[in-house]
Amino acid sequence: MVVGGDAAGMSAASQARRLKGPDELEIVAFERGRFTSYSACGIPYWVAGDVTERDRLVARTPEEHRARGIDVRLRSEVVGLDLDGGRVRVRDLESGAESWTGYDRLVLATGARPLRPALPGIDAPGVHGVQTLDDGQALIDALDAAGGRRAVVVGAGYIGVEMAEALLRRGYEVTVLDRGEQPMSTLDPDMGRLVREAMDGLGITTVSGAEVTEVLTGADGRVRAVAAGGEEYPADVVVLGIGVEPETTLAREAGLPTGAYGGLLTDLAMRVRGRDEVWAGGDCVEVLDLVSGRERYIPLGTHANKHGQVIGANAAGGYGTFPGVVGTAVSKVCSLEIARTGLRERDAREVGLRYVTVTAGSTSRAGYYPGAEPMTVKMIAERRTGRLLGTQIVGREGAGKRVDIAAVALTAGMSVDQVAALDLGYAPPFSPVWDPVQVAARKAAAAVREAG
Amino acid sequence: MVVGGDAAGMSAASQARRLKGPDELEIVAFERGRFTSYSACGIPYWVAGDVTERDRLVARTPEEHRARGIDVRLRSEVVGLDLDGGRVRVRDLESGAESWTGYDRLVLATGARPLRPALPGIDAPGVHGVQTLDDGQALIDALDAAGGRRAVVVGAGYIGVEMAEALLRRGYEVTVLDRGEQPMSTLDPDMGRLVREAMDGLGITTVSGAEVTEVLTGADGRVRAVAAGGEEYPADVVVLGIGVEPETTLAREAGLPTGAYGGLLTDLAMRVRGRDEVWAGGDCVEVLDLVSGRERYIPLGTHANKHGQVIGANAAGGYGTFPGVVGTAVSKVCSLEIARTGLRERDAREVGLRYVTVTAGSTSRAGYYPGAEPMTVKMIAERRTGRLLGTQIVGREGAGKRVDIAAVALTAGMSVDQVAALDLGYAPPFSPVWDPVQVAARKAAAAVREAG
Repeated sequence: MVVGGDAAGMSAASQARRLKGPDELEIVAFERGRFTSYSACGIPYWVAGDVTERDRLVARTPEEHRARGIDVRLRSEVVGLDLDGGRVRVRDLESGAESWTGYDRLVLATGARPLRPALPGIDAPGVHGVQTLDDGQALIDALDAAGGRRAVVVGAGYIGVEMAEALLRRGYEVTVLDRGEQPMSTLDPDMGRLVREAMDGLGITTVSGAEVTEVLTGADGRVRAVAAGGEEYPADVVVLGIGVEPETTLAREAGLPTGAYGGLLTDLAMRVRGRDEVWAGGDCVEVLDLVSGRERYIPLGTHANKHGQVIGANAAGGYGTFPGVVGTAVSKVCSLEIARTGLRERDAREVGLRYVTVTAGSTSRAGYYPGAEPMTVKMIAERRTGRLLGTQIVGREGAGKRVDIAAVALTAGMSVDQVAALDLGYAPPFSPVWDPVQVAARKAAAAVREAG
Repeated sequence: MVVGGDAAGMSAASQARRLKGPDELEIVAFERGRFTSYSACGIPYWVAGDVTERDRLVARTPEEHRARGIDVRLRSEVVGLDLDGGRVRVRDLESGAESWTGYDRLVLATGARPLRPALPGIDAPGVHGVQTLDDGQALIDALDAAGGRRAVVVGAGYIGVEMAEALLRRGYEVTVLDRGEQPMSTLDPDMGRLVREAMDGLGITTVSGAEVTEVLTGADGRVRAVAAGGEEYPADVVVLGIGVEPETTLAREAGLPTGAYGGLLTDLAMRVRGRDEVWAGGDCVEVLDLVSGRERYIPLGTHANKHGQVIGANAAGGYGTFPGVVGTAVSKVCSLEIARTGLRERDAREVGLRYVTVTAGSTSRAGYYPGAEPMTVKMIAERRTGRLLGTQIVGREGAGKRVDIAAVALTAGMSVDQVAALDLGYAPPFSPVWDPVQVAARKAAAAVREAG
C-alpha cells in the first residue's frame, strides 16, 4: 500500500510491479489529488510558457499506472495510520466517506506542504502557491485573466527565482522579497550576490532582508500590495515560494521517528527506522548528507525517484539502497545558471570542519571559441587534508551541469588536488584546456598548502 | 632547459618560473617553429571561420614568455642530445649554425608528428596537414585562393570529423575516407555508426574501409583526386587527419625508454624513467590508463598542460604528480556531440576483462522542456563487480560534457550501481529526473546482475 501518488510513491509502485506480477503482489496507491507522477519542478516553465500543456508535466497518468496493474485511487486521502493493526483510514474526498483498509507493507510518500506564514491577508485572492498542478493552473488562469502587471514573489530560493523569470517573461514587473542577505541562500552570500546582480540586470527587483508582515487587500478583497520591512510593494499577483516542509503529521501521530527538519528518518533501504514493514521516501523524509554525515532535508524530484526505486525493490523482495546525497542542485533565471553541491561555509562551520575557500573566474569554452561565457566557481576545501567540501557555480550557458564534476568528486571523497588532476572532456567548443572546475580546484589546492 | 615551445614545454617553464625567480633559476626554451603555447586543437575552428584570427589561438606569445623571464629561442631546433654530457645540440634554422648548450635539468616536450603515409602524390600541392599554425594558415590560404569545391578528408578521427565540418561550412562538398569500420574508432563501431548516420544527414559523404593508395595529380601537378579501394574520389583539396605519433627520435637515439606506441615512458612525477634530471610531457609521452593499468598514447592539449604544470613544479624543486588518465575525449561535428571515456569493448577484451554493455536512449533535458535533444549513452561494466569500465555518448547539445560524470566515476573506481545513485544536478532545463548517464548506469547494473 502506497500513500501518495507522486514521484516517490508511484516509482515505488512501478518498481515493485516490475519485480512482482499482479498475481504475486497487490499494489494499492492512495492519492488525495487528481494526478499521479507529475513534475512539480516543471510548474515554473509551464507558467513561463515553455511548456504549453499541463499534461506534459504528467510522466504517467493514473490510467497508465492502472494498465500496469497498480490500483490507483484518486481523491483518496489517508487520514489515519494504525501501524500495529496494519491498516490505514482513508477518506474519499468526493463523498466524505471514511473506512479502514489493511496492508502488509506500507510506503509513505506523503510529500511536502508549502510553508505559508499565518499573515494577515495571506489567503486573499491573488496570492498563489505553486506546489501542485492545480496551483499552477490557478496561477495561469489568474495571470491570463488579470489586467495587472505587477507581481511580487515572496522567497528567493529555487522556486522564487524560477517564478520571477516566469512572471518576467509574461510581461510582469517583478519584485522578489526575501528575508535572506542575498538571493539563493543555498549558496554562500558572496555567490548569491552574483545572482542578485544578474537579476537586477534582467530587470527583476530584489529586496533582501525583507520580512513580509502583511498581504494588503483592496476594496474588492483581492491582493493589492505586500508589506515588508515597513515598505509596501504593490502587487496584482503574489506568488509564494518560501519553501516547503515535510508532510509527516500522520506519521508523527503514529509514533514514527522524525528528525531535526521534521522529516521521517529511514535506514539505507529507505525503511522507516524501527519498522520492518514501513518504507518512506521523497519529500517527506530526511536524507543523509554524505559530506557532513548529518541528515538534511532536501526535497527534490530526483531524490524522490531514486527513493521510490529503492523502496519498490525492497518492498517487493528485491534489494536496493539509497546511500545518501551530497546536496547537488541546479537552477536558472533566464540565461543565468546557478548550481551548488556539498557544504556552504556555514555548513562546514556547523559540523566543525576547518576550510579554505577560493573563487575562480573562467569561461565555458576555450576563450577564443564563439559563445565562451564567463563563469565563477567557488570551491571549499578542508584544511590539512584538502578534501573537497563544496562547490558553487554561477554563470551562463554551460555553467550549471559542470557541478556534476564536483558532485561525483565529493561522493568519492576526492581532494582538490585529485579534482585538478581529473581527465575531463576537453575540446575548444566544450571547455578551456583546464575545465573551470579544475581552475578552481588548482587554486583551492594552493590555498590548502598555504593555510597549512 | 626546455625542448619544445608548445603546451607542455611552456607550461613547465611558466610553472617553474612561478616557483623560482630569474636569479634562482635560468630557463631556456628552444622551439623550432615561430610560435609558442598555441592551441593546435583550435585549428579546425579557425579554418571553419569560428575563430577569425590566428593570434587568438596563441595563449602566450614568445614576447609574453620573455617578459616573464623565460629565454625563448624560436626557429631553434634541437638536433642532438648528449645526456651524459648534459648538453643539447641546437641548430639555428635561420642561419643553419649549430652549437652545443649545457643544461642542469632537461624538459623534453617535443610533441608529435602527423602520420603521413609514403604514398604516391602525398606531397602534391593541395594536400594539407593541420598540426601547426603554419599548416592551418597554408590551408586557409589555399581554400581562400581555390576555385574548387570538392574536399577529401583522409581519416575520420577527431581531427578528421572536425575538419569535415570546417570544410562543409566553407561550402565544400566533403568526402571523408577512413579505413575503419565506422568513423571515430575511439568509439565502438555501434556508436561510430551513429556518428556516420549524423554525418550523412549533414551531407558529408563518409567512406569506411577505404585504404588510400594514391593521391592523383593533374597536369599542373596539383591534387585532383584520391584513390582508395579501387575508387577515385575527386578532390580540389585534401586534408590529412590520420593521427600523429610521438616525436621521440632524438630521445630514442639518446637511449631514453619508449613504450609500445613509441612515446617516452615517465614516472608519476613525469621524470623520464631511469633519469633523474630529465622530464618529459605532452604529445611525446605515453600516459598511464588508470582503468586498464596500461600505458597508452593519448596526445591531447589538456594532458600536455597538466604534464607541464607537474614538470615545472618538480624541476623547480616543488612537487607534483600526474596520476594518469581515463581516456576522456569530446568532439563535435556541427551540432552532433561525441564523447567517450574509459575502455571500449576491444580495450576491455585486450586486458582480459569480462564485461556487459548496454545502450540507453534519453534526452538532454526533461522531455517536456523545449530543446530536449535525444542522446545515446553506451556503458560498459565489468561482470561480477559491476565496476564502470567505459562510457560513450553521441547526441546533440548537452551530450558531450556529460561524459565528465563517467570520467570522475571511472577515476574513483565506482560501480554502475554507485553511478546510478549519484546526486547529480537536476532541474527540467538541465536534465531529465534521471540523468542520461544514470539511465544507462541503471540498465548496466541490471545487466551485471543478469549476467551473474
